[in-house]
Amino acid sequence: MPISLGELATQFGCELIGDPDVVIDDVASLRNAGPDSLTFLSSSSFRGRLNSTRAAAVIVRQEDAEYARTAVLIHDDPYACYARIAAVVHPPPVYESGIHSSAVVAATATISDSAHIAPNAVIGDRSSIGDNSYVGPGCVVGTDCTVGDDCRLIANVTLVKKVTLGVRAIVHPGAVIGADGFGNARTDEGWVKIPQLGGVQIGDDVEIGANTTIDCGALGDTVLEDGVRLDNLVMIAHNVRIGAHTAMVAMVAIGGSTIIGKRCLFAGMAGTVGHITICDDAVINGQGMVTKDITEPGAYASSFPSVKAREWNRMVARVRRLDSLARRVKELENRSK
Amino acid sequence: MPISLGELATQFGCELIGDPDVVIDDVASLRNAGPDSLTFLSSSSFRGRLNSTRAAAVIVRQEDAEYARTAVLIHDDPYACYARIAAVVHPPPVYESGIHSSAVVAATATISDSAHIAPNAVIGDRSSIGDNSYVGPGCVVGTDCTVGDDCRLIANVTLVKKVTLGVRAIVHPGAVIGADGFGNARTDEGWVKIPQLGGVQIGDDVEIGANTTIDCGALGDTVLEDGVRLDNLVMIAHNVRIGAHTAMVAMVAIGGSTIIGKRCLFAGMAGTVGHITICDDAVINGQGMVTKDITEPGAYASSFPSVKAREWNRMVARVRRLDSLARRVKELENRSK
Amino acid sequence: MPISLGELATQFGCELIGDPDVVIDDVASLRNAGPDSLTFLSSSSFRGRLNSTRAAAVIVRQEDAEYARTAVLIHDDPYACYARIAAVVHPPPVYESGIHSSAVVAATATISDSAHIAPNAVIGDRSSIGDNSYVGPGCVVGTDCTVGDDCRLIANVTLVKKVTLGVRAIVHPGAVIGADGFGNARTDEGWVKIPQLGGVQIGDDVEIGANTTIDCGALGDTVLEDGVRLDNLVMIAHNVRIGAHTAMVAMVAIGGSTIIGKRCLFAGMAGTVGHITICDDAVINGQGMVTKDITEPGAYASSFPSVKAREWNRMVARVRRLDSLARRVKELENRSK
Repeated sequence: MPISLGELATQFGCELIGDPDVVIDDVASLRNAGPDSLTFLSSSSFRGRLNSTRAAAVIVRQEDAEYARTAVLIHDDPYACYARIAAVVHPPPVYESGIHSSAVVAATATISDSAHIAPNAVIGDRSSIGDNSYVGPGCVVGTDCTVGDDCRLIANVTLVKKVTLGVRAIVHPGAVIGADGFGNARTDEGWVKIPQLGGVQIGDDVEIGANTTIDCGALGDTVLEDGVRLDNLVMIAHNVRIGAHTAMVAMVAIGGSTIIGKRCLFAGMAGTVGHITICDDAVINGQGMVTKDITEPGAYASSFPSVKAREWNRMVARVRRLDSLARRVKELENRSK
Repeated sequence: MPISLGELATQFGCELIGDPDVVIDDVASLRNAGPDSLTFLSSSSFRGRLNSTRAAAVIVRQEDAEYARTAVLIHDDPYACYARIAAVVHPPPVYESGIHSSAVVAATATISDSAHIAPNAVIGDRSSIGDNSYVGPGCVVGTDCTVGDDCRLIANVTLVKKVTLGVRAIVHPGAVIGADGFGNARTDEGWVKIPQLGGVQIGDDVEIGANTTIDCGALGDTVLEDGVRLDNLVMIAHNVRIGAHTAMVAMVAIGGSTIIGKRCLFAGMAGTVGHITICDDAVINGQGMVTKDITEPGAYASSFPSVKAREWNRMVARVRRLDSLARRVKELENRSK
Repeated sequence: MPISLGELATQFGCELIGDPDVVIDDVASLRNAGPDSLTFLSSSSFRGRLNSTRAAAVIVRQEDAEYARTAVLIHDDPYACYARIAAVVHPPPVYESGIHSSAVVAATATISDSAHIAPNAVIGDRSSIGDNSYVGPGCVVGTDCTVGDDCRLIANVTLVKKVTLGVRAIVHPGAVIGADGFGNARTDEGWVKIPQLGGVQIGDDVEIGANTTIDCGALGDTVLEDGVRLDNLVMIAHNVRIGAHTAMVAMVAIGGSTIIGKRCLFAGMAGTVGHITICDDAVINGQGMVTKDITEPGAYASSFPSVKAREWNRMVARVRRLDSLARRVKELENRSK
């Protein structure tokens, strides 16, 4: 959608240095921006690129404005400002309301008149779809689910049962919400399945990545508070609670009944055991494995960075001989007494 | 389903202390149970909670019975007993038999009269669906597959080809069984795909988690024996064999042709290389990486628990200087001779 | 498909020792091959098995030929030769061209007359499907996607938007290509979503595993060059570029904007952070975590192999006390000066 720099300045609270009537209709990186594009400078360390960009205008911090040769929109947080403008310039697709003839909707389901139910979607008993929400092709919304207003289930998403999504949720393809948690009692005759009777409660403004799985509670619900962001292939076990605005990068796995605070950040491939509590504002580094409560904000880690395999193998051998090394040091200490 | 304590005692072999005519119609945790609920005490260490529960009755071990203020059902294994009773109180949904008009069933497929084929499911050539089995919405059963009796494919499950499921299998959404294994021969012109010609043989009473993948054999079959439990996002490569009653928690990956014994337990994010053998009753701790045969039962591990990142980084630096430390100790030893 | 040894020798450039009129109609392992089967000897170390195989013929290297008691096809690379022959003996299924009546194809989509669109597949606006390509049951091809000739999307695959597949792509069930990358700007009010505006460009002869996810670019495209092989449950973040013939085993995760060279090999559960560059011919061992640029070919690692948990726990404790050990060695050195 084309929009003038003047209008952007007004709408997003920026100071504009440049011609307010210039119109942009795309966003791009500093390097690839063309003369109809808006771009942004996220860090002063890339100031040098301001010289060569062909963009119509750049969103910058006050202190970087003087280095630009183009029009500038001045904002305290250029990246967030860019994100908001990009969503205006390239709005998500709008779908006509209605239920496609190939979709199958249970008689007891409630679909808002303004919702769009795409081809081959299936909506089960007692479920409801809110205003302006989009249930994409191949999605299955099971029984007793509530999808709030302005949600987007992109395609082939499965909500199994008793799943509640707040407003403005985005659920990417292949995500499975509300499947049975992994509950089994060991007996001499093998495992006995623990019925998984709860649901999943998801707050507002949550985004859930492709092929991510969020299990229903065993008793009670699994809970994601407002603003949570999960990347692809994340696993949230039964009865986990995730605090508002916590984000998890790809392939994070959270064990059952673990409670996670607000604004935490889990880097890729990190994990936790079950039944622990993690405070607000904890950061778990990539591939980190949390095995007990975290009570202080800050960064936590347990993964080695890779090195040449030959060097690594020598290190592994050294670590395996640490007992022996420690014993030898002890002996030297005894001798030197 | 409401049921009396007397009936439960008879049906599940418990001693009842309390009024046999009291009826429960829900199960719950000790903390959340209401006056119509049954709950259970899994461990004597939570005895204190028996004081405050509002449950109608609690399943307890003999030695905990005297601490209860409610009716009690006495059983040697309260958790397993609870699991079995919960399945009676909250039975899985029952579906009318029949094939939904939107499902597409190949002419050469065989569907039991008592099976339920849900909306938009697809059943391919020469596949069969057993008595009372449920093929949920969006499921694709490919060619030459056999789904036994009393199975439940919840939704959006894919069986690709030559997959056999025993009786009472539960397959959660997004699981993919029988896709091609990762077989490639390296040549100067790039990879040459090795045709994946086998199938997948799955025993009775197996449960497979959401978005888990089990590849077909390259030649011969991938095999899961009776009672195996796989959590979500687990990966079983081609020609793996998993022994009866082995359980794998989320994000476990098993390399091709690896043979795993009975009653093993893989905690979350554990993995194995291919072409190894693991004996019965091995336990692999979370994020553990098995690189060679395991011949003795017991627990195995290779993952560090996370600590503050600053502390961790210092440890990593120390480990990297282990060679130097070992050399210095050697030198001290030489000097002190 | 039955084929004579003589024809195989001609077609695949092998020297045949044996009767050219013998016909085989199956492939199998040395151990399981029957009298109508062809098999292969991949490594001279298994020469002993040549004695007992019941196969009609074995593909061998020149130097192993004399040990065989059966007919032999001599080839420099028996495994690759086997792969090519197996694909002839057991060709992938052929589907009649046409669009199944339950599939939903947008009016603006273009489907080749020779393509097969299976039951309950959905093809969106402005997308095209090439000659002889197969879009399996439950697949969703979104908007502005291009599927080249001779591609196979097996079942329940999702291409979201702006995805281009070259010729001969194989995409296994549950794979999601072109979903939004994980882009979020942190603000005091929570995360602001960065619109993900790019697409995914995939070259020729690429194979993508079950439940693997490849995100679209934020700005610009995510790129997989020709001949790339991804196993199941792999995660490729936005704006990654993967060089030709690079292969990644299950549960590998690549962070955003990372550039990977040609012919690299990532073993299972390996990962990289974002925004790094990895040169051609790098090998990342299982569970290795790459945190910075790799500029030299060769093997890299950072994962410990599992040992008995008791032993491991002692090692972890030793590593945690390395600071103290190093201090004690320092003290000994000072004393011994």
